[in-house]
Amino acid sequence: MKIPGDDVIQLGHGSGGDLTNRLVREVFQHTFDNPILDELLDAAVLEVGGSRLAFTTDSFVVDPIFFPGGDIGKIAVCGTVNDLAVSGAEPLFLSAGFIIEEGFPIPDLRRIVRSMREAAERAGVRVVTGDTKVVGRGNADKVFINTAGIGVIPGGRRLSPRCMEPGDVVLVSGTMGDHGLAILAQREGLSFSTPVESDCAPLNRITAAVLEAGGDGVRCMRDPTRGGLATTLNELAGQSGRGILVKEELIPVRREVRGACEMLGIDPLYLANEGKLIAVVAPEKAEMVLKVMKSLPEGREAVEIGEVLSSDEGLVLLETELGATRILTMLEGEPLPRIC
Amino acid sequence: MKIPGDDVIQLGHGSGGDLTNRLVREVFQHTFDNPILDELLDAAVLEVGGSRLAFTTDSFVVDPIFFPGGDIGKIAVCGTVNDLAVSGAEPLFLSAGFIIEEGFPIPDLRRIVRSMREAAERAGVRVVTGDTKVVGRGNADKVFINTAGIGVIPGGRRLSPRCMEPGDVVLVSGTMGDHGLAILAQREGLSFSTPVESDCAPLNRITAAVLEAGGDGVRCMRDPTRGGLATTLNELAGQSGRGILVKEELIPVRREVRGACEMLGIDPLYLANEGKLIAVVAPEKAEMVLKVMKSLPEGREAVEIGEVLSSDEGLVLLETELGATRILTMLEGEPLPRIC
Repeated sequence: MKIPGDDVIQLGHGSGGDLTNRLVREVFQHTFDNPILDELLDAAVLEVGGSRLAFTTDSFVVDPIFFPGGDIGKIAVCGTVNDLAVSGAEPLFLSAGFIIEEGFPIPDLRRIVRSMREAAERAGVRVVTGDTKVVGRGNADKVFINTAGIGVIPGGRRLSPRCMEPGDVVLVSGTMGDHGLAILAQREGLSFSTPVESDCAPLNRITAAVLEAGGDGVRCMRDPTRGGLATTLNELAGQSGRGILVKEELIPVRREVRGACEMLGIDPLYLANEGKLIAVVAPEKAEMVLKVMKSLPEGREAVEIGEVLSSDEGLVLLETELGATRILTMLEGEPLPRIC
Repeated sequence: MKIPGDDVIQLGHGSGGDLTNRLVREVFQHTFDNPILDELLDAAVLEVGGSRLAFTTDSFVVDPIFFPGGDIGKIAVCGTVNDLAVSGAEPLFLSAGFIIEEGFPIPDLRRIVRSMREAAERAGVRVVTGDTKVVGRGNADKVFINTAGIGVIPGGRRLSPRCMEPGDVVLVSGTMGDHGLAILAQREGLSFSTPVESDCAPLNRITAAVLEAGGDGVRCMRDPTRGGLATTLNELAGQSGRGILVKEELIPVRREVRGACEMLGIDPLYLANEGKLIAVVAPEKAEMVLKVMKSLPEGREAVEIGEVLSSDEGLVLLETELGATRILTMLEGEPLPRIC
């Protein structure tokens, strides 16, 4: 039976959850059909002239374009830097493509571009090529930015969910859901006594520190953006073919975020993060890696949240605060469009 | 005196002409401030691990998305392949970022993606990484595609307008204005007894042939997209600090394109091309390079159209069919939005 609307793009196709995954598999992967794309990693790994490059792209359509803790320019730089960083690459160069709606204020554009430069400086990358397109009023919403990025992966380094082994430890670098909630609060006009800011930040310093401390014991890293921690863990479980168990009480969530989520009826584990790292690490390296993460400001609240199982292949299990265990699924449908 | 509307983005900021150049200089270049971006070439040239890479990006917002001779998918692949090719690189890898409007038909998306695959196969490149975002109805116009591309530049090859010398010959690979007119005709509902198709095609075979035949005698290459031949020649003149003289009677323009342009009151020299090459070549290599261009289907109508002058620094002069000489300026204002 054909579902009405099934053959048109829905907002959920951009949510980063199950609809996005189906679209990517059925339309893009199926058509482009090549082994590099098939890996579906945060960045493609390319062999070029004896070097291993990481190459990635993201378009940013976040609404609002200015939000507590950042703006579309900062997120456009950090998002791509982070996709390179979690692939084990040293991020080096970015491109920037702007699609701007007629009538957009040039002072706002300047502010966004300055914010990109600041984020690029902080991450140690350079924006080396770009493009500007303008569309008529009503044909885009203010400004969209695409960034693509190139990084270099040191020889011999191999990070992949396929390296995950039972007993490996799952670490996160800090609180979950801050970015998603900051956007949502701004959009809904919610205010808090302690405002929640987006965590938008480059991760390449912490990924480099994790790799230095953990060496071959670092199995893979991810940044839990669209779809949040729950979706990213499901991708890791699916790609590794392993089960993952995480304990709800160990997952750090700010009090204000937890409160607002309860009020709004949403789960912080599905909220996007833009400056948080998930690392899956061999048990013998976990303590050292965690120590190094905590020594950096961006990893001060790092903790162990769970482990890789020898059973429950491909599933993510959540041990709740009440001690029960349930399956934590990927994001379904479309709760939060234009979160990044 | 401040001009009303001067501080907001106008359609002309995306036309590829003088307004685009000012925006790029004053907002992007000024802020990002690095020597690679300052080159303002079609692709950035990067030194990575002993290799020289070309890296470029373009966003595509062409309206209509399906047009005679191509679609937004084909142009998204060819446009980026061509920016790499004219930089002297062998194009290798592309990224693809989609921004899709809610309600867009998935069969149309499939058609576009298939067209990207076909263009990629023809050009010998692979789409290795991608991203999909969805925005609500009315927040984008159907679909926008960004592609970024990576190519390798062989050691020792140096192409730059700065290499241009008086007496160098200006070659074009075929007729001017076909793409721009095909889009315009479709948009305005014009019909011709012989339909004009977009020339949208990858240029990397012909650029490789030109470089093989011309060696060091090839000073630089460009593809005259937004703003057309006139704008691209002005960029070459400005960046080289040389004058350029072209003869109107030598510039190939299809009869139907010329006729339609007269009717519409537009100049084909300002119409975009998406599969044409401009090459500036040392005089002693010109004959050989032209012969090689003409031997390929995509260069069958290649001709010499002019030369680099020892005077008139930075200006482009057009010798008209009546024998008079006038300055051919860069595209001013905004005649044709969303041409690519």
